[in-house]
Amino acid sequence: MYGLIGKIKALPGKREPLIDLLLEGSEMPGCLSYVVARDPIEPDNLWITEVWDCQESRQASLSLPVVQQTMEKSQALIAGFEQHVQTRPVGGQGLAHSG
Amino acid sequence: MYGLIGKIKALPGKREPLIDLLLEGSEMPGCLSYVVARDPIEPDNLWITEVWDCQESRQASLSLPVVQQTMEKSQALIAGFEQHVQTRPVGGQGLAHSG
Repeated sequence: MYGLIGKIKALPGKREPLIDLLLEGSEMPGCLSYVVARDPIEPDNLWITEVWDCQESRQASLSLPVVQQTMEKSQALIAGFEQHVQTRPVGGQGLAHSG
Repeated sequence: MYGLIGKIKALPGKREPLIDLLLEGSEMPGCLSYVVARDPIEPDNLWITEVWDCQESRQASLSLPVVQQTMEKSQALIAGFEQHVQTRPVGGQGLAHSG
């Protein structure tokens, strides 16, 4: 499996519309987990944790029209990427079965 | 919802038994997601990402006998905690429904 942990800094006051945008996305092939979370301390920051059945699925998702639209719209709301970690998930709970 | 993102450094050569131990745990009340992942670059490091229906559920889980046994056994395998972030998950995919 392939995982990502990312910390994104939104432009001031833009975290909520960014969260809404990120959560608009529909189910993506091979996506086993995709969680958007607020940072409780830093008001402009949010975290995204992802698990995919493989890196290729995640890569392929970037070409989906809905994902490209989301990426385009979110650029106007993002100040920067503060952490971007790739992981190799082994297992756990709450991993949707890969369609 | 309540979330945690943790980076744990295992003692040299102890990452795999630590992963096995962490994945032995059974379903925990209120746990919507619990993923254990290897760090692909640092051979002793692993990541745990968790989502709970609320902070109280996560706190209560620490009193479960199975969790206490896991924590006890894992102490002999852990060198240190390198990152421990609390988050407020908003939504996403792969979140089991809270039992």
